[in-house]
Amino acid sequence: METICAISTAQGKGAIAMIRISGEESFDICSKIFEAFSKKSIHTFKANSAIFGYIKDQNTIIDEVIVNKFIKSRSFTGEDTIEISCHGSIYIQRRILQLIINQGIRLARPGEFTQRAFLNGKLDLTQAEAVADLIASESEAAHKIALLQLRGGVSNDLKVLREKLLNFASLIELELDFSEEDVEFANRDQLKNLLADVHKKISDLAQSFKLGNAIKNGIPVAIIGEPNVGKSTLLNTLLNEEKAIVSEIPGTTRDSIEDVITIQGVLFRFIDTAGIRNSTDIIENLGIERTFQKIEKAEIILYLFDIASKNSWSKDVNILIEKYPDKKWIFVANKIDKLPEKDLPKVEEFRGVKVVTISAKQQLHIQNIIDALFEYVYQDNINPNQTIITNSRHFEALTRASEAIVRVRAGLQNALSGEILSQDIREAIYHIGSITGEISNNEVLGNIFGKFCIGK
Amino acid sequence: METICAISTAQGKGAIAMIRISGEESFDICSKIFEAFSKKSIHTFKANSAIFGYIKDQNTIIDEVIVNKFIKSRSFTGEDTIEISCHGSIYIQRRILQLIINQGIRLARPGEFTQRAFLNGKLDLTQAEAVADLIASESEAAHKIALLQLRGGVSNDLKVLREKLLNFASLIELELDFSEEDVEFANRDQLKNLLADVHKKISDLAQSFKLGNAIKNGIPVAIIGEPNVGKSTLLNTLLNEEKAIVSEIPGTTRDSIEDVITIQGVLFRFIDTAGIRNSTDIIENLGIERTFQKIEKAEIILYLFDIASKNSWSKDVNILIEKYPDKKWIFVANKIDKLPEKDLPKVEEFRGVKVVTISAKQQLHIQNIIDALFEYVYQDNINPNQTIITNSRHFEALTRASEAIVRVRAGLQNALSGEILSQDIREAIYHIGSITGEISNNEVLGNIFGKFCIGK
Repeated sequence: METICAISTAQGKGAIAMIRISGEESFDICSKIFEAFSKKSIHTFKANSAIFGYIKDQNTIIDEVIVNKFIKSRSFTGEDTIEISCHGSIYIQRRILQLIINQGIRLARPGEFTQRAFLNGKLDLTQAEAVADLIASESEAAHKIALLQLRGGVSNDLKVLREKLLNFASLIELELDFSEEDVEFANRDQLKNLLADVHKKISDLAQSFKLGNAIKNGIPVAIIGEPNVGKSTLLNTLLNEEKAIVSEIPGTTRDSIEDVITIQGVLFRFIDTAGIRNSTDIIENLGIERTFQKIEKAEIILYLFDIASKNSWSKDVNILIEKYPDKKWIFVANKIDKLPEKDLPKVEEFRGVKVVTISAKQQLHIQNIIDALFEYVYQDNINPNQTIITNSRHFEALTRASEAIVRVRAGLQNALSGEILSQDIREAIYHIGSITGEISNNEVLGNIFGKFCIGK
Repeated sequence: METICAISTAQGKGAIAMIRISGEESFDICSKIFEAFSKKSIHTFKANSAIFGYIKDQNTIIDEVIVNKFIKSRSFTGEDTIEISCHGSIYIQRRILQLIINQGIRLARPGEFTQRAFLNGKLDLTQAEAVADLIASESEAAHKIALLQLRGGVSNDLKVLREKLLNFASLIELELDFSEEDVEFANRDQLKNLLADVHKKISDLAQSFKLGNAIKNGIPVAIIGEPNVGKSTLLNTLLNEEKAIVSEIPGTTRDSIEDVITIQGVLFRFIDTAGIRNSTDIIENLGIERTFQKIEKAEIILYLFDIASKNSWSKDVNILIEKYPDKKWIFVANKIDKLPEKDLPKVEEFRGVKVVTISAKQQLHIQNIIDALFEYVYQDNINPNQTIITNSRHFEALTRASEAIVRVRAGLQNALSGEILSQDIREAIYHIGSITGEISNNEVLGNIFGKFCIGK
């Protein structure tokens, strides 16, 4: 494979930048542009050593750098790799990259280093995808899931299932060879048990996608309610509750009208808060249509009202709940500070929706909202410590595999022929294998790695 | 000294980021948060080795990383140093940094790693300053000067001069001890020669500052002229002449109304071109006052007129030249394509100002303008290959040293006492020493390193 190169550190000026070269020619190229202070050839240095020296263009010194040399058996890509740590000026980064390219080395495509690692068997496909997720992760929970996946968490589960299915498929296919003799190599009861087991595991994984996806991308929350019920105050109170780390991050592409909060390591995205911040985001002003839009974008709806005011409860709320029964609704009774303790209604639930009573202004019982938010996060008794799917490609493959398994189970029930059973088992195996990359094609790989950043 | 840490790569998300720890506790801290895949202790690894492993917070894995270990005799800072190359998510960068800080390690101040290198004698002050210049350099020439300075170019010259002056100062001071006896240890003729030599060298260096500063920050050029003489066309032609690499750089803070061009490695800044681009930047429209302002900001003035039109020559140009005789003026006779060859005036100079004839539209003789620009760059017969001062701190110290030397020379002429001579020589020595940092104080160091970025 061609040798490739790219700048791997973040774009822009820094103290240090890192340029990576991977492929058979790495050491040769390095020897042409790099001169160790010790004057020794790059080829003579041990693997995993850091070498001080100059990057040179003919006799012109370009920079003083540190070169890391990795041999293929111990590199990320599974190829001979050179990492050049240079001074982080834009000029130097470009100049060195240009120098390498002038030696006939190609600029790496997005994700190509990780793709090489996959192709060389250093990572399976879910692990490769986890690298991108890891780089993109913005919260503790998202980071944890990506890291678990990088370490093979998802793959290990799937590989075991796939092995077992493969084994059964082989036995059933063996029966086909002896079809005249009506033998049964594959014990049907064992197969039924196995399928029940596989089905359960695949369904659990597929089910975890909702949470996984929410954790990866942040859980969208809408705050709605009549004017002057305290939506803006609540938003600010929540934003202050935990430091909103992500909103400070330069270069995030997130829509600027969103406020994000990381609570206990989980990212919540408060959508369409521009109106709230301007104190004009009221159901009347927006019109019911725009409220629909806002609710549709959210997973959790905080419906806020003023417990001390009769007019703060919109007549429309009943329509909204009926229209969106699948959303997680939380009623928030605000301004409890305005009523004496004894006058506070003791409602905990209304129309099947949890009611939490707070004072956003006095910051009373804010934890109740947070608890209610986390009830959604962990509603399926899934928690981020177990294997969780965050990738829609995996979700789709699992869904397909699950459908195939359902067909096999029905086929067994109806005593269908081994030939048909085998076909469906093979389909399930195919879809499971496509997740880890045991089955893959260029188009799939292109889709996956094309979304990476360059340099990874 | 306290152990310090910082993120050294550019701010933001990248494939890879690098976190640096420097100081006595580096290896101990590393052993608390890092577990090599080989399970071996960080202390057992050789210097300059790259080690794969996990960053861990107690038992929680934070990332898979590569750690580079440098012992103090072979590190940038002159202290034991750990460099952690981690996945470049913002979350991971912060989490690892936080983990190190939680171990009691302090966040580095801007430039503090380089300051340590200076304090540990790894770099002198001009070299330390060159590190910042190197990171900031945006053109080939600026990069070349910074690199020369980093490699000790400026320091070497100054150290020799300072040595010689020190030697003479000692001899003269020795005479003072024997003042009753009227001996003369310091040969006055030799001293005169030395002073003439030192004076010349210091003056040359000080004089190079104008060019050095221009190269470092870009040379400001103004294009002025009557309406419709082709200013906008000329600007575009120049911008296309060489790729304007700097204007593409993300994150440069340069005023957006400036166009920058790198020609043969030197950066030219075309100031206040917004008007030109809008085709409204005409002397009449702007008024003479705003033209004054524009000229004041520039070093080079391209005064453009239409050679085929009598009205394109402003009556004000004479006033302008008289008002700004120290600027480099270039008269550009444009639109030569509109006249037959034989009707072209053969004027090469007017009022002492070079006249170049071009056609911006047909891109004829554009090289003549470029040559004229470079006449300014190298007007003092200085070229970027020799030692050039780019730093206003150095320029100021050299000017002061030069003044002291002038006083010594005058004193020698007037046969002043050794005591007075010695005082002035000491002052020159002091100022020269302040450049390389042989003389320094906390305030000066604070000023210098405070301008660095964090992580360097």
